[in-house]
Amino acid sequence: MKSKLFSLFLVLGVTVAFSVSAQEKDIKLPPQATEFYEPVVQPVKPGNENHLPPADAIVLFNGSSLDAWVSEKDGSFPKWEVKDGVFTVVAKTGGIKTKETFGDVQVHLEWRSPSEVKGDGQGRGNSGFFLMGKYELQILDSYDNKTYSNGQAASIYKQHPPLVNATRPPGEWNTYDVIFTAPRFDAKGMLISPARITVLHNGILVQNNVTLHGPTQYIGIPHYVEHEEELPFHIQDHGNPVSFRNIWARKLD
Amino acid sequence: MKSKLFSLFLVLGVTVAFSVSAQEKDIKLPPQATEFYEPVVQPVKPGNENHLPPADAIVLFNGSSLDAWVSEKDGSFPKWEVKDGVFTVVAKTGGIKTKETFGDVQVHLEWRSPSEVKGDGQGRGNSGFFLMGKYELQILDSYDNKTYSNGQAASIYKQHPPLVNATRPPGEWNTYDVIFTAPRFDAKGMLISPARITVLHNGILVQNNVTLHGPTQYIGIPHYVEHEEELPFHIQDHGNPVSFRNIWARKLD
Amino acid sequence: MKSKLFSLFLVLGVTVAFSVSAQEKDIKLPPQATEFYEPVVQPVKPGNENHLPPADAIVLFNGSSLDAWVSEKDGSFPKWEVKDGVFTVVAKTGGIKTKETFGDVQVHLEWRSPSEVKGDGQGRGNSGFFLMGKYELQILDSYDNKTYSNGQAASIYKQHPPLVNATRPPGEWNTYDVIFTAPRFDAKGMLISPARITVLHNGILVQNNVTLHGPTQYIGIPHYVEHEEELPFHIQDHGNPVSFRNIWARKLD
Amino acid sequence: MKSKLFSLFLVLGVTVAFSVSAQEKDIKLPPQATEFYEPVVQPVKPGNENHLPPADAIVLFNGSSLDAWVSEKDGSFPKWEVKDGVFTVVAKTGGIKTKETFGDVQVHLEWRSPSEVKGDGQGRGNSGFFLMGKYELQILDSYDNKTYSNGQAASIYKQHPPLVNATRPPGEWNTYDVIFTAPRFDAKGMLISPARITVLHNGILVQNNVTLHGPTQYIGIPHYVEHEEELPFHIQDHGNPVSFRNIWARKLD
Repeated sequence: MKSKLFSLFLVLGVTVAFSVSAQEKDIKLPPQATEFYEPVVQPVKPGNENHLPPADAIVLFNGSSLDAWVSEKDGSFPKWEVKDGVFTVVAKTGGIKTKETFGDVQVHLEWRSPSEVKGDGQGRGNSGFFLMGKYELQILDSYDNKTYSNGQAASIYKQHPPLVNATRPPGEWNTYDVIFTAPRFDAKGMLISPARITVLHNGILVQNNVTLHGPTQYIGIPHYVEHEEELPFHIQDHGNPVSFRNIWARKLD
Repeated sequence: MKSKLFSLFLVLGVTVAFSVSAQEKDIKLPPQATEFYEPVVQPVKPGNENHLPPADAIVLFNGSSLDAWVSEKDGSFPKWEVKDGVFTVVAKTGGIKTKETFGDVQVHLEWRSPSEVKGDGQGRGNSGFFLMGKYELQILDSYDNKTYSNGQAASIYKQHPPLVNATRPPGEWNTYDVIFTAPRFDAKGMLISPARITVLHNGILVQNNVTLHGPTQYIGIPHYVEHEEELPFHIQDHGNPVSFRNIWARKLD
Repeated sequence: MKSKLFSLFLVLGVTVAFSVSAQEKDIKLPPQATEFYEPVVQPVKPGNENHLPPADAIVLFNGSSLDAWVSEKDGSFPKWEVKDGVFTVVAKTGGIKTKETFGDVQVHLEWRSPSEVKGDGQGRGNSGFFLMGKYELQILDSYDNKTYSNGQAASIYKQHPPLVNATRPPGEWNTYDVIFTAPRFDAKGMLISPARITVLHNGILVQNNVTLHGPTQYIGIPHYVEHEEELPFHIQDHGNPVSFRNIWARKLD
Repeated sequence: MKSKLFSLFLVLGVTVAFSVSAQEKDIKLPPQATEFYEPVVQPVKPGNENHLPPADAIVLFNGSSLDAWVSEKDGSFPKWEVKDGVFTVVAKTGGIKTKETFGDVQVHLEWRSPSEVKGDGQGRGNSGFFLMGKYELQILDSYDNKTYSNGQAASIYKQHPPLVNATRPPGEWNTYDVIFTAPRFDAKGMLISPARITVLHNGILVQNNVTLHGPTQYIGIPHYVEHEEELPFHIQDHGNPVSFRNIWARKLD
């Protein structure tokens, strides 16, 4: 690969002799021996602030239009409200899903529960973000709102409670930063490796590379059955006017 | 720390110049640079055959006595039958558990379902091996015996079906070779890392470092609640005269 | 244990009959069956912005004083400059380390390379953040600055290149958000599980739960030798006036 | 999927009321709710003894011919000796590799170092088994034979020492049972997940799902560069007459 010969002088010229304690003898190594130039790392321009989409992100909502999304029922244009750079669930119009499909992915999204508190438990500011349309990261107004641990905000719904409850008060914006690894199946449809997820909620680690038990179930028990390698994201219409802004994703595979 | 200086002559004397392609320059390294003498690896004498206990194993059944076990109900001496180097469940006397406790562990065990087939599905040759008394590796006569996938032999009961069904016919001995990693919890009792398990059934990989969802439940949903770092193994009395022999374990932590 | 009996009426009253396809029969489950209230999730107030320390964080630099740090050489008070809410390496005064020790941890830190570019490659805006004083997350002005892949900003130094290069231009602030899992050793000092790390650089995933080969070596080959469960963070004096601000950490174990 | 309605009588008829402690109320669940019949688990007939190939294995040496192998140099028929159901390295004829390629895989192989001990350290009964032709599981007569920890039998050569030294005396057969997960790369050639390996040596766990640092290097530092998803196994000619028998592999993906 490289044609220039490494100068012997340079080897001898290394002045810091390093004693690697577990070796049988002191070995003088040139530091260049552990310097690798491949693979070459591609630059990616970050957003001006960390929550803004970097240059390689697929922007899924830029404040003005839901044209990256369709109704999950019939594929029609979403009936949710877009206003002031924000979109909001319109109850009973059904969930929405992305046109684009994703497998392993980094996702950023921001959500806000209504400032006027109505209902309690699961009835209060409820929605959900479904990776691959199957694996739900719960969205709920969990600020001083008791519900089951594995159903509160930032839980992997009915599977993993968050490590802590980092929810901001009603009417304030919350952020989710998500790293998702899709499950893998073998040729016979048996699970080879399960889905895994890491989540930061408002900058705080709440899911630490946890393993998903299977697609999320509201009633019943999650278990894996083979599915596609890439699938759309879904956002749930749970009847509450939860709002969203600034959603972007970076494919990892 | 080694005090003797590594001979420069030796460095220069390395005749195989290796071109590490991704480095900027060809680097001549002495192979000794990557040779480590610490930590020192301790020898362990294996059994004469692979299924026999190695020198560092805790033998839990050597063919003659159940004195490593107690009744899981009341801690009394087990009422199960010991005969011809084998022990067998005596129905309705209750399960048994080890006196010794284990966390991360390698376990070998051999089990045999009755040669006369009675019943079907879960009623046929049913028992179970519980790591930490909580995480069940299913024992069942699954030879040409339909039941639910996540309840057949070598399943992690009601969690993970085996990758294949490697069960030998009724009356023949089956082996399980198990590598188990215990779950870890943080100071507040939240799960830091879940239990994981690898199983070879009759020499065939059936569970590949899968993640357990929580303690096994017959009725209900597994989920983690903090528990001790080491706990006994249990073997289940499910009412069928399943037999066992040659059980040993090596602590890994 | 709960004493109130779950109303049978409620079970019968579940109107959404869910067909779990892989089960032998349609099962009507109450959704409450999968709702767990333990462990209870503790609330933690996030910072007003995501990069600011949440309520449970250990603040390691709040803008005014280095009193959470000492010189790594002799334990004396650090000789680095503190000014305008920022601290800066003073060349040849040596690295610094925290008084507090950490194992599994989430860390946030912000760093800035000098706006006036001097030198190139590893000579330009070089420092390093050492988890446990041993595992280096590289700090370098890698904006349009060629060096080895496994030595640029956000690399695990001499082990893992970042997935992409997300470095901001000289003089601008960079953030690292880090999730670190400490290595575990068995009673004989053999490695049970290696260190792992996830890093977001300016909000972009650059290290995805990668496994560390051992403590970072400048010259030589990383390999694990048993060490303490918790150790201080170190920041390197590499001779360049790199600046830092807003450093905080949350213990995870 | 299933059309028969689950009898309500059966639900009510469940007599074991299970109190799931972390739920808000006692929930009566039918055990059928957690019984899944899909995916269906395929039967695989194990060998008559655990070390013999199961029905789905690709047999790579059955005792009589090396026709599953070619010379790694030029693809010609291997010049190694086959005799008495065993094949043996013929020094200086070069290594051999399989015609078949493998990614994720379970492998069994048996090897024997010469009963007459010649040489010491790495000079004594040395060969190697290379997964994907790149990742070496070391073969060496390590019975009472000092060498570097990360170069002895059952080490991942120059990366991971075995947890214990389970080598049988010279002239006796050793077994390796290996579970290997191939590395994954993204579209740009960056490493997504590294190779991992579990090894039982004579039935004793010696590598516990360890992560490989990259392709094995004799001189130099391992690091990943993108490669194919499946590649042949190699066996090394290191100049010593090491013998082999009973080699088989099961594809896992």
